[in-house]
Amino acid sequence: MILTKKAKNKPEVVALIMAGGHGERFWPKSRASRPKQFLSLCGGKTMLQQTVERIDPLVPPERVFIATGRNYVSLCTEQLPGVPPENIIAEPLSRDTAACIGLAALDIEKRYPHAVMLVLPADHILSDVPAYLAKLEKAVSVAFSGLNIVTLGIKPDRPETGYGYIQQGELVSRDERTEVYRVKAFKEKPDLPKAEEFLAKGGYLWNSGIFIWRVDTIKKLIARYMPMLHMHLETIRAAAGTEEEQDVLNREFALLRKISIDYGVLEKAKDVYVIPGEFGWDDVGNWLSLRRTRPCDESGNVVSCRHVGIDTKNCIIEGGEKLLVTAGLNDVVIVVTEDVVLACTKEKAGRMKDIINVLKEKNLISYL
Amino acid sequence: MILTKKAKNKPEVVALIMAGGHGERFWPKSRASRPKQFLSLCGGKTMLQQTVERIDPLVPPERVFIATGRNYVSLCTEQLPGVPPENIIAEPLSRDTAACIGLAALDIEKRYPHAVMLVLPADHILSDVPAYLAKLEKAVSVAFSGLNIVTLGIKPDRPETGYGYIQQGELVSRDERTEVYRVKAFKEKPDLPKAEEFLAKGGYLWNSGIFIWRVDTIKKLIARYMPMLHMHLETIRAAAGTEEEQDVLNREFALLRKISIDYGVLEKAKDVYVIPGEFGWDDVGNWLSLRRTRPCDESGNVVSCRHVGIDTKNCIIEGGEKLLVTAGLNDVVIVVTEDVVLACTKEKAGRMKDIINVLKEKNLISYL
Repeated sequence: MILTKKAKNKPEVVALIMAGGHGERFWPKSRASRPKQFLSLCGGKTMLQQTVERIDPLVPPERVFIATGRNYVSLCTEQLPGVPPENIIAEPLSRDTAACIGLAALDIEKRYPHAVMLVLPADHILSDVPAYLAKLEKAVSVAFSGLNIVTLGIKPDRPETGYGYIQQGELVSRDERTEVYRVKAFKEKPDLPKAEEFLAKGGYLWNSGIFIWRVDTIKKLIARYMPMLHMHLETIRAAAGTEEEQDVLNREFALLRKISIDYGVLEKAKDVYVIPGEFGWDDVGNWLSLRRTRPCDESGNVVSCRHVGIDTKNCIIEGGEKLLVTAGLNDVVIVVTEDVVLACTKEKAGRMKDIINVLKEKNLISYL
Repeated sequence: MILTKKAKNKPEVVALIMAGGHGERFWPKSRASRPKQFLSLCGGKTMLQQTVERIDPLVPPERVFIATGRNYVSLCTEQLPGVPPENIIAEPLSRDTAACIGLAALDIEKRYPHAVMLVLPADHILSDVPAYLAKLEKAVSVAFSGLNIVTLGIKPDRPETGYGYIQQGELVSRDERTEVYRVKAFKEKPDLPKAEEFLAKGGYLWNSGIFIWRVDTIKKLIARYMPMLHMHLETIRAAAGTEEEQDVLNREFALLRKISIDYGVLEKAKDVYVIPGEFGWDDVGNWLSLRRTRPCDESGNVVSCRHVGIDTKNCIIEGGEKLLVTAGLNDVVIVVTEDVVLACTKEKAGRMKDIINVLKEKNLISYL
């Protein structure tokens, strides 16, 4: 491994975990007050806790930063007692990943100006942690060695239309466990024929949203490709430590456009690399995805409560304390929480935003 | 009216309300510990309370008798404070309507040997009470005038396969409000083509389970057509007031066969009359029947809780305190109780016994 061979040049590694999502797609289990990353949808610990634990061999909690919405700061400190409270970065508003990363980089560079930064979504799962850590270690060494952006790409096993894709370019490095490719192109979420073509052709990976770069690299690249964002960030930095710090932050953030780091930087940058992996990754995107990440019963039902199913097939049954009895249902999602029962087709569950919008129209905000 | 004209011959009228049903078809709202007749499925009062109230102009509560299972005696006294506790007749076991009526007749004849007895199911509803009472009054006068059995028959408005039918014979009496026919034949629950034939032909009525006779008449007819039942009832009567009363009752009841009064007496008796009526009667047989007895929303859903339906049609939604959200569902029944959520197709809800049996097999008795 490069990292152990070159111990004296070993980079300092920090992690930025992006935990600002609203998680509407798991309504009613996820609520505005407790989005998906703060829930344990797969296993005992919450997804945020799992994300932090999983990288512990590479990044101890003292060097973990969390970017999240202001409302969620207390959930973060509660769920992550090992992460110093000053490492929790509260965004005044959701302004997509470029702003989130730019703001976090201001904080991180003060204490770790030469560190390599792992940028990790807080609400994904993966089952093969050793493989994941090995890829990350490789990514760190690539990121450390230049003005490079590194991403982890997931080898697709189905023509998924819900993810963006990364087209691999030339192979630039290989060892027994890891290959590094140049990124040829980023592809938006495809339609099904396109996704099937990607899968058939090969050389296309899912964009995992996991990025690795030096903190000074991303600062430079934001300055180069997103000068407006850079300007606002500089204003925020200039006010840091003054009485106006919060006012300036609020004002500047409100002026930002919602742009993803993929669109704002990655698609424009020159030295972008991808490391393919397959470590049981899943973005746990909505109720339907539990079919992939949890065991099914013999009728294809994913069940997390006391349940009796009679002629019940391929359903998602997420109950609470009550006995849940189903009969004659196929492809239905049923979720019972303290104050809501949701019963809908899988198709509707895949478009939860529509359901949320109806509830908003009916002014049932307290249930969101 | 015959009754008012012949005031000096005015019969004493008592009512026997049969409230022994287990009400499995409304599971999980109806439970073994609280069957349908003790619930308010349609309106504020329970069905039993409504049954008693409805006949009040004809039969005051002091002359109302309730036949029920031993476990339900306290529910009856609780729900019917006006009915004297000694009028509640506890059957040791369910032995169908002939045994129930025979046992009740023993009690009733002691105090009202010449009374006319209305026999009424506790778990039906009807909306036109004045019409119902007018038919009952006429039935009382017919029953009083001889060794007659009188039934109320409901004019069918659909080819229902869930009810028995009564074929009308010759018209024997008519006034401006009421016609009395001889019964030509009782017909078992028909299949759909047969039911359609009945409806098309006319002259067929639904058997409402409402019977009217003098107490001495039914005693004589049981003695004639059901000599075994008569013998057991005589043994029970002989033990009444002795120390062995309960033991004898238990023992004799256990020896009885389950036979309905329709099969045991009505189909064999000679002077059986039917009075046709249409007073918004419904037997509220199962969840599906609520479609007929409760208002629907514009999508055909019957809803009794806070509900948001998105592309939801012809569903039965019986919730509790929780918000119930449905999307993309047709012809589904959802019932939420304190400890159970049931979600099933209407087809399955129409065969609740199958669901109950599965729960029994799985030893989930406490939920029944």
